[in-house]
Amino acid sequence: MASKIKRLALLGSTGSIGQQTLQVVRVLPDHFRIVGLAAGMNTALLEKQIDEFKPRFVCCQDKKLESSLAKTQTELLSLEEIATRPEIDLVVIAISGTAGLIPTLAAIKAGKSVALANKESLVMAGEVIMSEARKNNAEILPVDSEHSAIWQCLSGEKQKPAKLILTASGGPFLHYSSEQLKGVTAKEALKHPSWQMGKKVTIDSATLMNKGLEVIEAHWLFDIPFEAIRVLIQPQSIIHSMVEFADGSLKAQLSYPDMRLPIQYALSYPERLANPDLPRINWNQIKSLTFEEPDLNKFPCLKLAMEAGQKGGTYPAALCAADEVAVELFLAGRIGFADIAELVERVLGQHQAQTYPTLEEIMAADSWAKETALRLTGEK
Amino acid sequence: MASKIKRLALLGSTGSIGQQTLQVVRVLPDHFRIVGLAAGMNTALLEKQIDEFKPRFVCCQDKKLESSLAKTQTELLSLEEIATRPEIDLVVIAISGTAGLIPTLAAIKAGKSVALANKESLVMAGEVIMSEARKNNAEILPVDSEHSAIWQCLSGEKQKPAKLILTASGGPFLHYSSEQLKGVTAKEALKHPSWQMGKKVTIDSATLMNKGLEVIEAHWLFDIPFEAIRVLIQPQSIIHSMVEFADGSLKAQLSYPDMRLPIQYALSYPERLANPDLPRINWNQIKSLTFEEPDLNKFPCLKLAMEAGQKGGTYPAALCAADEVAVELFLAGRIGFADIAELVERVLGQHQAQTYPTLEEIMAADSWAKETALRLTGEK
Repeated sequence: MASKIKRLALLGSTGSIGQQTLQVVRVLPDHFRIVGLAAGMNTALLEKQIDEFKPRFVCCQDKKLESSLAKTQTELLSLEEIATRPEIDLVVIAISGTAGLIPTLAAIKAGKSVALANKESLVMAGEVIMSEARKNNAEILPVDSEHSAIWQCLSGEKQKPAKLILTASGGPFLHYSSEQLKGVTAKEALKHPSWQMGKKVTIDSATLMNKGLEVIEAHWLFDIPFEAIRVLIQPQSIIHSMVEFADGSLKAQLSYPDMRLPIQYALSYPERLANPDLPRINWNQIKSLTFEEPDLNKFPCLKLAMEAGQKGGTYPAALCAADEVAVELFLAGRIGFADIAELVERVLGQHQAQTYPTLEEIMAADSWAKETALRLTGEK
Repeated sequence: MASKIKRLALLGSTGSIGQQTLQVVRVLPDHFRIVGLAAGMNTALLEKQIDEFKPRFVCCQDKKLESSLAKTQTELLSLEEIATRPEIDLVVIAISGTAGLIPTLAAIKAGKSVALANKESLVMAGEVIMSEARKNNAEILPVDSEHSAIWQCLSGEKQKPAKLILTASGGPFLHYSSEQLKGVTAKEALKHPSWQMGKKVTIDSATLMNKGLEVIEAHWLFDIPFEAIRVLIQPQSIIHSMVEFADGSLKAQLSYPDMRLPIQYALSYPERLANPDLPRINWNQIKSLTFEEPDLNKFPCLKLAMEAGQKGGTYPAALCAADEVAVELFLAGRIGFADIAELVERVLGQHQAQTYPTLEEIMAADSWAKETALRLTGEK
């Protein structure tokens, strides 16, 4: 039963997913070892993590930390170098935003298993990533709770599913009127009813943009046409997604909303590991699970994302980039909540898309959309 | 993709499960062929089925039909002969009651795949059946919706589950008081809120005895200790059961209550087949799924069955037999609804159980319990 210890590179170790990944590793030291760590500017936390997990490789953006590490046995590497080292079995991509794309591709080209928590890579460059993964026989293991749920439900099934049903909590403003939505502040939008997450994804959850991005991810991960993917509001966030099969049977994956579970499943797959820290559902507490259709008029971001996914080409990259800028402006108090969708729509309306884009064309669409979003709001 | 046509023997073709099995076969003639049919006294329906499906082998209990069939190309065989013919790939055991046990064992000993809809075989002789199945490399494919759900959820999983959660509709009297339950008539008890089934199983559903028998079945089918099996009321009958894994993740199988789905899954396994007759869940109709603990004081049959299962030996056989008599007496208006549990409890209280019983000892316990039940009610 004793399986080999998996050697992990964790890219983005100080963010929400990164920290939760380390919580899993801390509880299961016989199964996982941190061999590489990479983080951005949160040097204080990264230093603590280095001290505790003693990684062999580190990538950091802080020159002071770099020079102090240079005196130790730790090797300083770039993100791509860590992602491709032969000492690594599995690369966890916990970097958010566009920055996750390049190390993801590097790991895949090196034939590594990749536990992918970064949404933008698949949304922007799904075709490139999946074709490289096939070519290099690299496994992509989803970390998002919805895609993990679908992946778990597909386990052992011989055929492609008939339909994917991505569930959504609906966010904090599920039953707000359009008028109320206009007045939403950043502080209100950052209070998610069921999930503890980073700022960007919390706002994206409130606008339902996040669910739209997940539809595009699911399309690529599971090779399912957009027509066969639907979104269903499940406000208690207990059912994390469902799969419908050819015979009409459905499977659902359920748990309390806790990212450590999908993270651990991606790390331990194809095994499951007992972890006393992970909560078990108490059915005396769960009296009822409810379901609602999403309201695409009140949450136009979901519609915009699904349309961009269906159009394909560089549309999803432009969508992602425009949304990134829009959310930043909203968090900075420069635009209102309802302006996020409007800005994304205006950027997409001006986009001259490329079909079957190369990585360069995708990155160009990203830059163009960010600049256009800033220009349209008079920020640049 | 074209898989070989599976050649089926359907034992119990005129009952509820038998007729629904033929509905599935009728829609999927490229996948299944009826090679053997067996039925009891419903000669008119059996004749129609023979006419439509033209089986090569038939077993019937009607002498008149036998002599008319003797003039045709149909071979008249016994149940055990049909269950073991080399021309048969899969035997569907749709016979209810104790009569299902012998042909089930015969099919297993012949190494056949067995789609098992008969509850009594596993409840009474679980140990004998499972050890013969292992010995003869015979697959047992569950047809009960709950066990089919668990089986579907276990697909592809490498480890044993941590817990099985058998769901129950709760039957028509879920929220009746103990006083109200005493006054329940057979006519009321035969109206099940969600499932169309035979009379015996419908009454067993109303007392929750059925769920208790299913706990015992699940114990044998999936080799799970009784402590790790629990029952949860899910009144809408959409979630057909759930499995909890070592990491706290749960999977559930969902569909409208329609026995054709688990029947078809047992026939088509490991494939799934598109069948336009099987309903797809319409999520606009399902607003909410609710959950409740079963009340063991109001539904003592569930408790009696779980206790008999844990005690093991010939207790489950005695339970089954006592319940069979009790339900017959209730349907005949000879005892009240609440008397069913009381009678079963009295019979079990007098039972001198055998541990690790042989088939003969199981059958002896069955006869003893039936006689004792009749004696205790003054019927014999």
